[in-house]
Amino acid sequence: MTDELTIWTYDWVPEGPRGFVRDLRLRWAAEEAGLAYGVRTIPFEGRETNHLDRQPFGQVPFLADGDINLFESGACLLHLAGKSERLMPHAASAAADTLQWVIAALNSIEMVTVPWWFLEITGQQDNGLAGWVDMRLAQLESALAGRDWLAADRFTVADLLMADVLRVRKVRARGNRPATEAYVARVTDRPAFRKAHADQLAHFKAAEQK
Amino acid sequence: MTDELTIWTYDWVPEGPRGFVRDLRLRWAAEEAGLAYGVRTIPFEGRETNHLDRQPFGQVPFLADGDINLFESGACLLHLAGKSERLMPHAASAAADTLQWVIAALNSIEMVTVPWWFLEITGQQDNGLAGWVDMRLAQLESALAGRDWLAADRFTVADLLMADVLRVRKVRARGNRPATEAYVARVTDRPAFRKAHADQLAHFKAAEQK
Repeated sequence: MTDELTIWTYDWVPEGPRGFVRDLRLRWAAEEAGLAYGVRTIPFEGRETNHLDRQPFGQVPFLADGDINLFESGACLLHLAGKSERLMPHAASAAADTLQWVIAALNSIEMVTVPWWFLEITGQQDNGLAGWVDMRLAQLESALAGRDWLAADRFTVADLLMADVLRVRKVRARGNRPATEAYVARVTDRPAFRKAHADQLAHFKAAEQK
Repeated sequence: MTDELTIWTYDWVPEGPRGFVRDLRLRWAAEEAGLAYGVRTIPFEGRETNHLDRQPFGQVPFLADGDINLFESGACLLHLAGKSERLMPHAASAAADTLQWVIAALNSIEMVTVPWWFLEITGQQDNGLAGWVDMRLAQLESALAGRDWLAADRFTVADLLMADVLRVRKVRARGNRPATEAYVARVTDRPAFRKAHADQLAHFKAAEQK
């Protein structure tokens, strides 16, 4: 079984991040693609230094695909997308469309929302990134108006990633953006998301009971 | 000539960002790969709305490759990398190694350094992202110690992108990190970088003289 996928995550996390740890992105993608996978863990305690040989920033997830190992959830998603047209169409133009929206989720939206959120939860409620967040979310609302999916007129890994970025309620609570709300509801209503989400919650709950 | 690459950038920018506008990443990649390309422009003035049909966040660059169009410099780099082994090795494991470091540059380093820099230049010198920047740069310093290139034991598009992220002096000025300094010097000493950098400066200077 050396070609089975293994998704690595923490053995346990506190209540707050449950349902949001990024192994969920990989579980979700594997479920969408119908790829078999196992889940293995590294300790949450000491995470800053206990797996730097596997993930140089001390984070999860990372992925093993036979003898291929990679970290960064965005990179793992693109790797998985290369294995299944259900995640990314093969046609060159549709693949490029998907790729640009994957990177937009990581580098135009999340690059602004995550630091904003970090400042927010560490006590800077009205921090200097708020205007930038609002601008990006307004631009995204315009892009989403009148279409169901970001790329290639169908669900792709770009929707999986963008919806995961936008799932954070604090971010969306900054304004009334009906196309974005409908989009997040549409994408997270997929059975593969619901299974991945439930499985992550069960994983961390089981750890609690040990 | 429908298969020639066209890199789109602004017609003009103020002095400050010259040498840092991200069309440089695409010029550099095309130079490394020996791919022919042209450069075309959209107006800097009115950029918030004048090309949203081409780039939904009003940014540059975007790339045309025959009838394939894509935005996001990271996506354009990965697209170009698919055209040339000089940017990304073909072997699956080395390609995954390259991909993970491309995404790390965008989503683990730049996601912290750019918002920190934005707050810094807008007057919040000791902002709440400083500790996070320092942690990421220390982790990257450890990763760079003892090796010349991030992935696959050779120059790849991951080095191009990471070095471009780290070129911002304000970011690196936050500490003494000799491996990182040597790395940035090594990568930006490449003829392809020097040509792309000089060409961008010349492009904006020529606009000034019109």
